[in-house]
Amino acid sequence: MGTMAKKSIRTTSFDVAALAGVSQSAVSRAFTPGSSIKATTRDKILEAARKLNYVPNSIASSLTKNRSSIVAVILGTLSNPFYVHTLHAFSQELQKLGRQTLTLTLSDTMDTDEAILKVLQYQVEAVILTSAQLSTRMINLCHDRGIPVVLFNRYIPHSDVYGVRCDNVSGGRMVADAFLAAGARSFMMITGEANGSTSQDRVRGFVERVLEAGIPRSAISSYPGLRSYEGGAAAVDMHVAAGHEIPDAIFGIADVMAMGAMDALRYRYGKRVPEDVMVAGFDGIPEGGRPPYQLTTVRQPVAEMVTETLNLLNFDGAREPEELTRDRPIAGEMIWRATVPRPARAEPAPVAVAPEASAG
Amino acid sequence: MGTMAKKSIRTTSFDVAALAGVSQSAVSRAFTPGSSIKATTRDKILEAARKLNYVPNSIASSLTKNRSSIVAVILGTLSNPFYVHTLHAFSQELQKLGRQTLTLTLSDTMDTDEAILKVLQYQVEAVILTSAQLSTRMINLCHDRGIPVVLFNRYIPHSDVYGVRCDNVSGGRMVADAFLAAGARSFMMITGEANGSTSQDRVRGFVERVLEAGIPRSAISSYPGLRSYEGGAAAVDMHVAAGHEIPDAIFGIADVMAMGAMDALRYRYGKRVPEDVMVAGFDGIPEGGRPPYQLTTVRQPVAEMVTETLNLLNFDGAREPEELTRDRPIAGEMIWRATVPRPARAEPAPVAVAPEASAG
Repeated sequence: MGTMAKKSIRTTSFDVAALAGVSQSAVSRAFTPGSSIKATTRDKILEAARKLNYVPNSIASSLTKNRSSIVAVILGTLSNPFYVHTLHAFSQELQKLGRQTLTLTLSDTMDTDEAILKVLQYQVEAVILTSAQLSTRMINLCHDRGIPVVLFNRYIPHSDVYGVRCDNVSGGRMVADAFLAAGARSFMMITGEANGSTSQDRVRGFVERVLEAGIPRSAISSYPGLRSYEGGAAAVDMHVAAGHEIPDAIFGIADVMAMGAMDALRYRYGKRVPEDVMVAGFDGIPEGGRPPYQLTTVRQPVAEMVTETLNLLNFDGAREPEELTRDRPIAGEMIWRATVPRPARAEPAPVAVAPEASAG
Repeated sequence: MGTMAKKSIRTTSFDVAALAGVSQSAVSRAFTPGSSIKATTRDKILEAARKLNYVPNSIASSLTKNRSSIVAVILGTLSNPFYVHTLHAFSQELQKLGRQTLTLTLSDTMDTDEAILKVLQYQVEAVILTSAQLSTRMINLCHDRGIPVVLFNRYIPHSDVYGVRCDNVSGGRMVADAFLAAGARSFMMITGEANGSTSQDRVRGFVERVLEAGIPRSAISSYPGLRSYEGGAAAVDMHVAAGHEIPDAIFGIADVMAMGAMDALRYRYGKRVPEDVMVAGFDGIPEGGRPPYQLTTVRQPVAEMVTETLNLLNFDGAREPEELTRDRPIAGEMIWRATVPRPARAEPAPVAVAPEASAG
């Protein structure tokens, strides 16, 4: 700890430049990824920097520039591989833009507001929020500090927080269409976060479409799946434990829950998929496409969503703020695999009731 | 902020205000993004702040205390769920200790040295490194700055960087023992990172044990598995494409690669596991225990390893540094599931050659 006391007289890039016998701008370039600098010059500078115990402090310098090049990614759960793939995509893309990713996963003891308060302390340049609820107070706090917040895979109705998401209502309808076309008449939904727009919208689209086919609401049961494989399996257990028949078709509103349900159906209850019961998911994670599952699903356009998010973050200030206040859902894509029999012709099931306008 | 000023002899916003000839509230506004302030006034304040080496807020105060309560976790890949579970465990535990997790995943364009340079710029309190190579230069750089580095799930031979890891050599031996006891005489290994101690040690323990049973080295083939499910499947493809017979037993040195190999064996080549070919993994990820896999494996004691890492990080300065310079591998646990026939009695296969001392 003795060395720390000396540090108040901070070594600067000028000291390093002097020792290395180069210009200060060369020192700056040596510590800027992608900069053009001769390898021998760079080595000389790094050697001088090592001797002087110098490391460029981008946080300190960022304070005057008002940005840290840290982007916070707040995740609700890593038990759903969709968010792992999302985090990976953001990490890689942000690195290309010279940004670092500060990841926070929410625990039972930390809600989103608290997480935002935490990350604001680090002068983050932006916040990407993939989870749940954000209070109006927090939205205002970020706005007041000029920190852009982008919601990924969700939105807050009636707010001006920018959201990037899949059209979940339409996706839910696609799944219902597939089940109906294959002849299903009784249904089970395994739902995600109760307050999350993503789960709510998928459920809404699905239920709307089933009702339109003239099937009563009572033919659709629903269980929470805890956003995990284990939760998906437990949902099937709950249904069976309550004395109900296995339905014709099960919609896991996230692939990972559909996979858990499939394994419970097959390995605990001896059911064949899709012969005895159809299953479909949502998200399009690679894990659902593996041979033991071959899960039919709606794929979220993750690459496009990540690109759109980075556009919204507007790092270079190139876009007009006016463009950013709209909610723009991106269409998902139906991926036919093995867990729902595919109709010979892509003919929609009959619509008994005119559809209401979908959100989005 | 007023209370902080009293804690130390530290430049305050009042000092800056005095030097710049403005009010303290103007200084505050100058450092608040989005605040209304004249550009010339702001420049004057920033100039004064620079002269006084003043920086506001929690990052600023962390600079004088030389800690930010940001802990960097550097990950080589998220394609192996083991590291996702590890990241999750660290996030949760660090949050309990009042620390935030700065996650960096290494890309093709960023090696570990570069990642460390990045995170040092953010005045991180500590670095947890779960990936690959760290140069002696970087080790020295961290040491010089008093930033503890803990290697998780690996070590650097002949260095004094602290490592927390499973006893991978013994684990590799356990897998070989299981295969030998079940009668396997030809083997394939699917390896991980070529330069990583983890893969090297697992391979070493496995090969040692097979050779001790009097089986020639030529009976063991080896393919890189890219630390992913897809890589594990591709390793089987490579073996078959080269015209070789499927061996008696396949050791995926990470569960995720073993799972990929299993699916390739079963769904591409029509093999039954374990009747036609045995498979075992290493890590003990929950995914390997799901019914379609039921993978026999060596479980790493992750919770214990995370706790040990946090002890080494020594946030409260409670431990003596001398305790921290030892490499202490923690024993893994053999998990018998369905992919290797379990011997009726746990009798080890014959040892034809006396074992050499294992590392660790």
